[in-house]
Order: sequence, then C-alpha cells, then structure tokens
Amino acid sequence: MTTAARASDLTIGMVMFPDMTHLDLAGPYDVFSRMPKTQVHLLAATLAPVRAEGGWTTIPQVAFDDAPACDVICVPGGIGVNAMMEDAPVLRLLDRQARTARSMTSVCTGALVLGAAGLLRGYRATTHWLSLDLLPLFGAHVVEERVVVDRDRITGAGVTAGIDFGLVVASQLLGADVARAIQLAIEYDPAPPFRGGSPASAAPALVERLTLMRAQAQAERRAIAERAARQIDGLAPDS
Amino acid sequence: MTTAARASDLTIGMVMFPDMTHLDLAGPYDVFSRMPKTQVHLLAATLAPVRAEGGWTTIPQVAFDDAPACDVICVPGGIGVNAMMEDAPVLRLLDRQARTARSMTSVCTGALVLGAAGLLRGYRATTHWLSLDLLPLFGAHVVEERVVVDRDRITGAGVTAGIDFGLVVASQLLGADVARAIQLAIEYDPAPPFRGGSPASAAPALVERLTLMRAQAQAERRAIAERAARQIDGLAPDS
Repeated sequence: MTTAARASDLTIGMVMFPDMTHLDLAGPYDVFSRMPKTQVHLLAATLAPVRAEGGWTTIPQVAFDDAPACDVICVPGGIGVNAMMEDAPVLRLLDRQARTARSMTSVCTGALVLGAAGLLRGYRATTHWLSLDLLPLFGAHVVEERVVVDRDRITGAGVTAGIDFGLVVASQLLGADVARAIQLAIEYDPAPPFRGGSPASAAPALVERLTLMRAQAQAERRAIAERAARQIDGLAPDS
Repeated sequence: MTTAARASDLTIGMVMFPDMTHLDLAGPYDVFSRMPKTQVHLLAATLAPVRAEGGWTTIPQVAFDDAPACDVICVPGGIGVNAMMEDAPVLRLLDRQARTARSMTSVCTGALVLGAAGLLRGYRATTHWLSLDLLPLFGAHVVEERVVVDRDRITGAGVTAGIDFGLVVASQLLGADVARAIQLAIEYDPAPPFRGGSPASAAPALVERLTLMRAQAQAERRAIAERAARQIDGLAPDS
C-alpha cells in the first residue's frame, strides 16, 4: 500500500503481541485483505518482529503510536493476553481507538484484552470456551455463540471462529454481497473431519481432559483478569 | 524450539514464497503447531522475510537448502504459485523431500506446485475451485472434495480448506484422538454466515462473476502450467 488512503477508505487495525495465537488474526486477515477499498494494518507496540505461540514470527506494519484512527480494531487471543490485560501500551491504544472506531472487536481470548480496557461493560460478548467464565469480571454478559454482535462490539469464539467473525465484520461494513464473494473466493465451505469442535458437541471426557490440563493456566489467568478488572473500576460503564 | 529434535519426533516443513496466500499456511500451522512431539519449520528459499498476498510479512525459520528431511511437506497456494511452478529452488526442494517424506501435501493452488514438481502424476488431488481444470496438465485426477488423501499425497481445496486438511493430516500422523483434541482446542465448530462457500452451493451468478473476473489471470496461469508440465515430461510417473 504505497498510495495514501482516501478519506472514503476503510481502515482496519489488527493488533499483534508476543504469544498471540497466530490463526486468531490470520483467519480474519485473509477476509479483510480481500475487502475492496480497505486498508489493513498489522499493528504492534513497535516495529520489532512479533513471535506468536508456536513460533510464527511476523514483521508488524505500524507501531501503536503511529496508528491512524481505524474503523475497526481487532484483538487476537493466545497465551499473550495474560500480559496484555495489564499492558499499558495496548490498553492505551484500545482506549484511544475506541473513541472513534466503528467497531472494537476480538477473536478468541482477545475479548479479555478488550475487557481489561473497559470496553465490554454492559456488552454481550464471547471468547474461547475455556475463558468464558472470565468475561463477567469485566462486566460483559456471556453469550455462547460463534460470533456475537452487540452494537459497536463484535467478538468471536475460539481461534477458528475468526473466519466466521471476519465474514460477519465484512458483511456489516460492506454488505452481504461483498462478504459472500469473499467467502466463495476463500472457498469457505468447511468440512471438519470430526464432530466435537465445541464443548457442546465434544465428548464430555475430552472436554474434561482439556479443562483439567488447562486448570492451572486458567487459574493464573483469572488472577490477572481480576487484578486488571480492579484497575478499571473507576471507569464509567459503556452503557 | 531450542532443544534438539529427538529421532522420534515428527517434522513438518511448511513452504513459504512471495505472494502466497497467508491463510493457506496459517490454517494448518495452528493445527500442526499443537501436535505433540512435532517440530514445525517455516521454510523459504532464504531467511529473508517473505511477503504474502495482502502484505503479511513473515520471517522464515529454515532455508530450503538447510531443511532436514521432513515427514510432511506442505505447500500453500496464491498468486505466487505462478512463479513457483517454474522456480528451480522450490522444485528442487520438493524433489528432494519427496524421496523420504511420508506425505507431500498442499493447500489451495499449492497443488499446482506439487504438480510442476512431477509429484501428482497418477494421483487423485484437489485444489482451489478456480484452478481445478489445471490439475490434469500434471497428470492428476481431479476430485472435487475438501481434502483428498491418495496414498502419500494429501491435497486440500481453496484457502480455508487448510484447517480441515490440517486436522486430517494430524489424524493420519498421530491418530483421531489427538486430532479431536486439537479440533476442540482451536474450537473448530464452524458457522459460516452464508451458504455458498463452494461453487456447488453458491449462486451461479456469483460463481460466473468471480470466474470472469479471474479469467485473464487463469489464462496466464494455464500458459505457465502448460510450460511447467512440459518440463517434467521426461520424468517417470509416480505410479
């Protein structure tokens, strides 16, 4: 993108941070980057490479402090959200962007970062199934759906929900016809090899096993979320 | 990954090149990187950053010439496959890896690169719906399914099929229980906002519109594929 953005263009800022889940952002990215007249910026605290969980390392495009006012901000999840819930630069970015953005959005546990920025108070929202119980700490009302749209907040469930989420956002911004064309272009006609991609449909023993495996990590996350929530107690609710 | 790989570990090499479709690789990456005892390497011609379609720029991990013999090689698609069908370094990598790999695989139009390397002769295979007609140039038998497994070749359909593909590969390598656990961990319970993610289910007018929009690009791609296919005429068929 070497040409300057026209005032009529849409601008989407995708937030990156260490130990994010790569696919949380990569799913909607390949939707957003196909939207006509839309500029997508990969934002990070600095322009230093960002290493996601698993090791995929990306060169960001715009530093937080240099980011233009975006129509949509999208925050991914991952192990790294634990640090981001108390990270001054990312919380400052979200606070600033929320004043002018049409939608503040998240995929997976990115919702916890929106929450820590005080942006989910009184909103219906979702997140990865393992962290749903943390959303009320930030004043959000949990909705167990794949994509939750509540006024100027759009939240997606875990990881792969980012594709469904991206198409919903595209449809809201540019209409269903554009979103349908992108869906066909990226051949999104999913055929999961197994049932059980959500706790509602998976074998209870598997849900229990993953829950137990993650119990300690989730307890640590809860402690951070509680601390982060106390930091925003002085903020006025969004609604 | 700072620890040395044990001999019993699985190794997966994911091929990167300029103007690949980012999500083609990012989808299966977040499956593969959750597989136990599995090392995932992002391979590229050199360690210079690789810019995908749309601009997402990644720092590769291993240069083609330094890549270990991998159990699985995965090739993504995108505009960049046009160049890759005649790219000596990538074809040499695929030729070398195919001698020892358990599976040579692709997502989207990555199948055309496998084909240009002479690796799809006599195999059933799939690719992005807009390029299905090019597969027979390489001696492949077109199968219009989301994921096609034929002996030591596994091919996925367009872009988002990479997630279904990744779970199929995980299941083959480590069993269904591991794949089911990963599917639940990445909450893969898709809920596309629209019908019509494949040409079979989309409105015929939309299929025609995308086909026409891409007609010139596909004609150019066909010319390259025909030229690439002639280069492998001297190779013995795989089966």
